[in-house]
Amino acid sequence: MQEDLKFVVIVGSLRRGSFNAAIADTLPELVSEKVIVERMASLDTFPHYSADIEEEGIPQAVAGMADAIISADGVIIITPEYNHSMPGVLKNALDWLSRVSPQPLANKPVLVQSSSVGKFGGVRAQAHLRQVLGYFDVRLLNKPEAIIGEISEKVTKGILTDESTRQFLIRQLVAFEKFVRAAP
Amino acid sequence: MQEDLKFVVIVGSLRRGSFNAAIADTLPELVSEKVIVERMASLDTFPHYSADIEEEGIPQAVAGMADAIISADGVIIITPEYNHSMPGVLKNALDWLSRVSPQPLANKPVLVQSSSVGKFGGVRAQAHLRQVLGYFDVRLLNKPEAIIGEISEKVTKGILTDESTRQFLIRQLVAFEKFVRAAP
Amino acid sequence: MQEDLKFVVIVGSLRRGSFNAAIADTLPELVSEKVIVERMASLDTFPHYSADIEEEGIPQAVAGMADAIISADGVIIITPEYNHSMPGVLKNALDWLSRVSPQPLANKPVLVQSSSVGKFGGVRAQAHLRQVLGYFDVRLLNKPEAIIGEISEKVTKGILTDESTRQFLIRQLVAFEKFVRAAP
Amino acid sequence: MQEDLKFVVIVGSLRRGSFNAAIADTLPELVSEKVIVERMASLDTFPHYSADIEEEGIPQAVAGMADAIISADGVIIITPEYNHSMPGVLKNALDWLSRVSPQPLANKPVLVQSSSVGKFGGVRAQAHLRQVLGYFDVRLLNKPEAIIGEISEKVTKGILTDESTRQFLIRQLVAFEKFVRAAP
Repeated sequence: MQEDLKFVVIVGSLRRGSFNAAIADTLPELVSEKVIVERMASLDTFPHYSADIEEEGIPQAVAGMADAIISADGVIIITPEYNHSMPGVLKNALDWLSRVSPQPLANKPVLVQSSSVGKFGGVRAQAHLRQVLGYFDVRLLNKPEAIIGEISEKVTKGILTDESTRQFLIRQLVAFEKFVRAAP
Repeated sequence: MQEDLKFVVIVGSLRRGSFNAAIADTLPELVSEKVIVERMASLDTFPHYSADIEEEGIPQAVAGMADAIISADGVIIITPEYNHSMPGVLKNALDWLSRVSPQPLANKPVLVQSSSVGKFGGVRAQAHLRQVLGYFDVRLLNKPEAIIGEISEKVTKGILTDESTRQFLIRQLVAFEKFVRAAP
Repeated sequence: MQEDLKFVVIVGSLRRGSFNAAIADTLPELVSEKVIVERMASLDTFPHYSADIEEEGIPQAVAGMADAIISADGVIIITPEYNHSMPGVLKNALDWLSRVSPQPLANKPVLVQSSSVGKFGGVRAQAHLRQVLGYFDVRLLNKPEAIIGEISEKVTKGILTDESTRQFLIRQLVAFEKFVRAAP
Repeated sequence: MQEDLKFVVIVGSLRRGSFNAAIADTLPELVSEKVIVERMASLDTFPHYSADIEEEGIPQAVAGMADAIISADGVIIITPEYNHSMPGVLKNALDWLSRVSPQPLANKPVLVQSSSVGKFGGVRAQAHLRQVLGYFDVRLLNKPEAIIGEISEKVTKGILTDESTRQFLIRQLVAFEKFVRAAP
């Protein structure tokens, strides 16, 4: 019998009505019944990274997220694209997490999703994010890629309602669950 | 007779003893006598970007830096590399600046410099930064590239003292000054 | 009175019925009457780059294209995306051109267009191509970007017939012509 | 008892005296005694990729390399950097391999090494290569990264002789062997 898995979700946008947050909030409906999805706190609880602050100790918000990641079976990062890359606030969170020892994302299964109002679905943000995650030595699911364009037409009242996108994400989440269970 | 030029400098690191800040603080010694160099305030005066905050108006620190950029003849960005990309805090500043209208970096001459304690000098941070600056439609100096490795051995008491690096930057700054003066 | 300009066009695909070639073949209809567009020979006339071959001299096909680029006022590169980057054959052509002295693309105005059958229009190929062109020190038009998805629905009998794409490219070509004429 | 493993090696440069080929030729001395290393044929046996050629069938050289990859336990790609990316000839080989069905690199353990005469060791070529390999859905060893600068000082008579680089590669190859054996 398969054990239950816990996936934690990081959202790259701070906006309350964020489309990416809507995707995050829809994931519990899309995962298998053996998976629990837990959304992490907003990334604005982290200070701007500075080695001077770090010298006084890892901030509590960072340490809390690091602990949650370590105890999770997989991490899902959902991000918009700002100016052809990931949001600074998401990169700042990763910069902090990289300073925690042991580094919580090392060897952790990670799934990436991005969306945008335009047609390209945050593909460039995701390209940069994937490069950065390589440095963190995560176990990244290469495929299938979730790059969701025209997101504003696919979300209703804070939930992803577009049926074909939901079906695609269900398939991606099945692939990710299998990937997590196959972890060496 | 050539007019005086003003270059403003953005430093990607918040650390007080930052090596990149040391490069910034050395630039006034390296530019020609027709150039004034002005270092911008620390990027931690910007909030984390959120469209919710933006709705209440562009924060004062952002508006101030945008004004300084608009009135400058050129912008120099000096950055470390964190986790194979630029620091989140630098990207966050750019995310804010992209929301100011008119966008202050559009068509502005920009020079990029990076440094690292290791051998690769922040080359990957600079690659991401250059991609993002393309989106801002800056006039980017392609070459020569300032990618300064082993920076901790080249800075003494907060000033870049390594002579060959200083000579290289003098040449780069001459090229940038020429590039700025040739602006269409 | 404005002088006539000549733009040369490089197509990244070798396929006879290539959609990118169709875009190239449509450009003469889209440029202003002051612009002549000349399509370069297929890139398969270049050998695979090898320093051993180079030692015997720059191949004739390479030298010919270099001369055409040098005598042109602007260069347009139109490329598909293969495996998240530009085609090897296009990169191989650039690798050869980089060995010609003086390097023909240096300071040359360059316009990039990409297309794909899928939705993302070759955006990742174009990202890599733009990074490489930075190294060539071209004067790259940053914006507007021509990233054309679902190209198979927009081409009829070897000509780009989709009206909104044609109108977009007309605007991009006007911007490029202005960019070329403003060259310092 | 552990089984013997076979790694095949692809070299991104065609030059007979290539430094990257020298690294390839040194690998048999550096791997454990349970590993056989086999260098693939030069990539100039592949034609320039064209869908028109593909329609007549996958070329024999491509099919041969695909078979060798499928029967191998791991693939090592060693590449120089040309113009801030991988050589066109290496990308062309990957473009061909992507057309073989089943795609031979899918889920295959892959190790990347790069070198350059300059200080940056081909880091930008490797960045592009890693992005492309993500699309191939390989199992990429994230770390440690082999980015070898000043290679001309580290090779003697076609063999990598620099002792600290050899020791580093021995450690990387041990990590790769472990990674291959842990394959799910």
